[in-house]
Amino acid sequence: MSLIVQKFGGSSVANAERVMNVAKIVTDTYKKGNDVVVVVSAQGDTTDDLIAKAKEITPNATKREMDMLLSSGEQISIALLSMAIQSIGCPAISLLGWQAGFVTNSVYSSARIKTIHTERLLTELGNRKIVVVAGFQGVNEAGDVTTLGRGGSDTSAVALAAALHADRCQIFTDVDGVYTADPRKVPSAQKLKEITYDEMLELATLGAQVLNNRSVEMAKKYNVELEVISSLNPIPGTIVKEVANMEKMLVRGVTKDTDVARISMIGVSDIPGIAFKVFNKLAQKNINVDIILQSVGRNSTKDIAFTVNKDNAPVAITALRELPFVGDELEITCDTDVAKVSVVGAGMETHPGTASKMFEALYNSDINIQMISTSEIKISVLIDAKDADKAVLAVHDAFLG
Amino acid sequence: MSLIVQKFGGSSVANAERVMNVAKIVTDTYKKGNDVVVVVSAQGDTTDDLIAKAKEITPNATKREMDMLLSSGEQISIALLSMAIQSIGCPAISLLGWQAGFVTNSVYSSARIKTIHTERLLTELGNRKIVVVAGFQGVNEAGDVTTLGRGGSDTSAVALAAALHADRCQIFTDVDGVYTADPRKVPSAQKLKEITYDEMLELATLGAQVLNNRSVEMAKKYNVELEVISSLNPIPGTIVKEVANMEKMLVRGVTKDTDVARISMIGVSDIPGIAFKVFNKLAQKNINVDIILQSVGRNSTKDIAFTVNKDNAPVAITALRELPFVGDELEITCDTDVAKVSVVGAGMETHPGTASKMFEALYNSDINIQMISTSEIKISVLIDAKDADKAVLAVHDAFLG
Repeated sequence: MSLIVQKFGGSSVANAERVMNVAKIVTDTYKKGNDVVVVVSAQGDTTDDLIAKAKEITPNATKREMDMLLSSGEQISIALLSMAIQSIGCPAISLLGWQAGFVTNSVYSSARIKTIHTERLLTELGNRKIVVVAGFQGVNEAGDVTTLGRGGSDTSAVALAAALHADRCQIFTDVDGVYTADPRKVPSAQKLKEITYDEMLELATLGAQVLNNRSVEMAKKYNVELEVISSLNPIPGTIVKEVANMEKMLVRGVTKDTDVARISMIGVSDIPGIAFKVFNKLAQKNINVDIILQSVGRNSTKDIAFTVNKDNAPVAITALRELPFVGDELEITCDTDVAKVSVVGAGMETHPGTASKMFEALYNSDINIQMISTSEIKISVLIDAKDADKAVLAVHDAFLG
Repeated sequence: MSLIVQKFGGSSVANAERVMNVAKIVTDTYKKGNDVVVVVSAQGDTTDDLIAKAKEITPNATKREMDMLLSSGEQISIALLSMAIQSIGCPAISLLGWQAGFVTNSVYSSARIKTIHTERLLTELGNRKIVVVAGFQGVNEAGDVTTLGRGGSDTSAVALAAALHADRCQIFTDVDGVYTADPRKVPSAQKLKEITYDEMLELATLGAQVLNNRSVEMAKKYNVELEVISSLNPIPGTIVKEVANMEKMLVRGVTKDTDVARISMIGVSDIPGIAFKVFNKLAQKNINVDIILQSVGRNSTKDIAFTVNKDNAPVAITALRELPFVGDELEITCDTDVAKVSVVGAGMETHPGTASKMFEALYNSDINIQMISTSEIKISVLIDAKDADKAVLAVHDAFLG
């Protein structure tokens, strides 16, 4: 008998039929003798509908009241799912974030979980009840409702699995696992049986929108075994854990990210501390910088280029223009017509040929590389956006085809 | 400076415009220097929509999960109203039932308030915040969410006013006060400035659907001064209190109730204890009996007639048929084509002529009286349903015209 945490997102419980489908999965797990804790998000468009209601009142709602408003969404889901489980003949009880013991800090709309008081959960599990917990929410120490921000229900599920020492945390989604590339774009993409936390983090960051990064980080920290699995077809999915069976695969996945912009500062004076000042300024504006390229230019100037999230590009350029050494004569360009293509795999750090194999594949497809960035488990290149899909195919086939 | 509790029903907060209207009323009260606690119900049709969602899952939802589901409705209202108040520039904070300290018993869907822990409320009021409380809900001692059943938000408001020793509890509705009769039917109906708790209770019971009875009973018990007032036109409404200024009015109101059925048992054996057995049987089935008439019949038998709520009539007849002394030969009839018309007024007990004045008015309008019932502050007659409106007009004009 195992203790299993199962998490279902908003689309999995969007209507009565899907709620019944989830209840079937949950009760099947329960009937095999397992203890089951279920974490659910708000139904389908509920959160968007509630945000629209708030906007009708004021564009400047306080975050505390937004959290009060939005947390009603999961409340509806947990009640309906508990009813559905009970209608199948299994005992169930719904618990709100505060009832399930989630204590967070007071950063409304993106609170961090501080602790989970598990007494109530353990009592209900001890009574062989299926416990249905509202994801995405908790209370701060003053007893005010908080929400965990984007991907919060994944985080709730992993945190619960950690607190309860669950044997597994299953994240149900609309895909049946993690693939080596987007299967809609790359016909030879393969489903991975296993993947490490670090690989999953790189894949998530790079745009394979399967698991929220915060939840993977937490799973890594507390060594919670995750499974990404389909709620429509609950065959075994992809297991995310500390050490994954490599199956002789050098690379775990190939991803693309088109939500990126390249900013170039051309002809910056070549004096010490310039790079520090540039990136410190961006950090002050909370702008994450990804690939950085610094080249020696002509006439004792140099060029600095880097990539940021597309949304952040205008703010970044404005910030750079505020720097004292940036005069009107300095050319700052922004190219949003770019894409980042990456290969990820924990094995590549011990295989020196990975980078050259990737560059060869791109060269053979006539794709020009603008920038390169490497880490222990990934290699990213910045290329023209129009080449992105072709590049993913070529790189995927070189490593995994 | 006073402490005022203001309660707004679902139709008063049905959309953004109405929420802003409520915020205007609340902040006007606050800006006069008063401390304000606001109790709100779920928006418009929210509760019905949630019930429909549950029915899609199962027709037999447990009451605990229904309470979990339905209590999300007020959560949305309190968040939106707090945002609206803040957008006007006044400080506000929303509190759920459990946050506002409402502790109830565990009778899900019709819980009774046991106590209100007012610490949090007093702290927020001490900070000069407008406190917006979710009506209709609380938690039991195990920390599970309960709802108070029909009219629950009125009860929440009165209980809060009692616990906080508020100076007044204003119940905002879509009428601007309590009238001597339904103003849509009786052109000469007058708005009452004041009315006693007992009179209000009689009027509520008799179908003047302005205030929930449970809340009036609680207001009487804790001596909370109530005001029934319009949210669309917040001019002074009707005050409900222990001793009302009589203004020389003998009668406070004339009401009709068409939701009534008359059951007659004709030819019951005239042996001792029959009446006890009949009404004890009905009490066992939780059926309230109103007017009772017992007449000596022919041949050592008698007739027993009484009125019940229309919905209860079939259950009542089935129950009567189970009595050992009720054979197939006993005739039991049920007439649902009847109406009860009543006059209510605390002054009438000292005016012996009230009853005859009422009967005279009915006689002059050719209305036949089937049954009569009197209490210290009311006289009711059962008549043909078709005569009900005519009877209300005639009686109203006789006393109040």
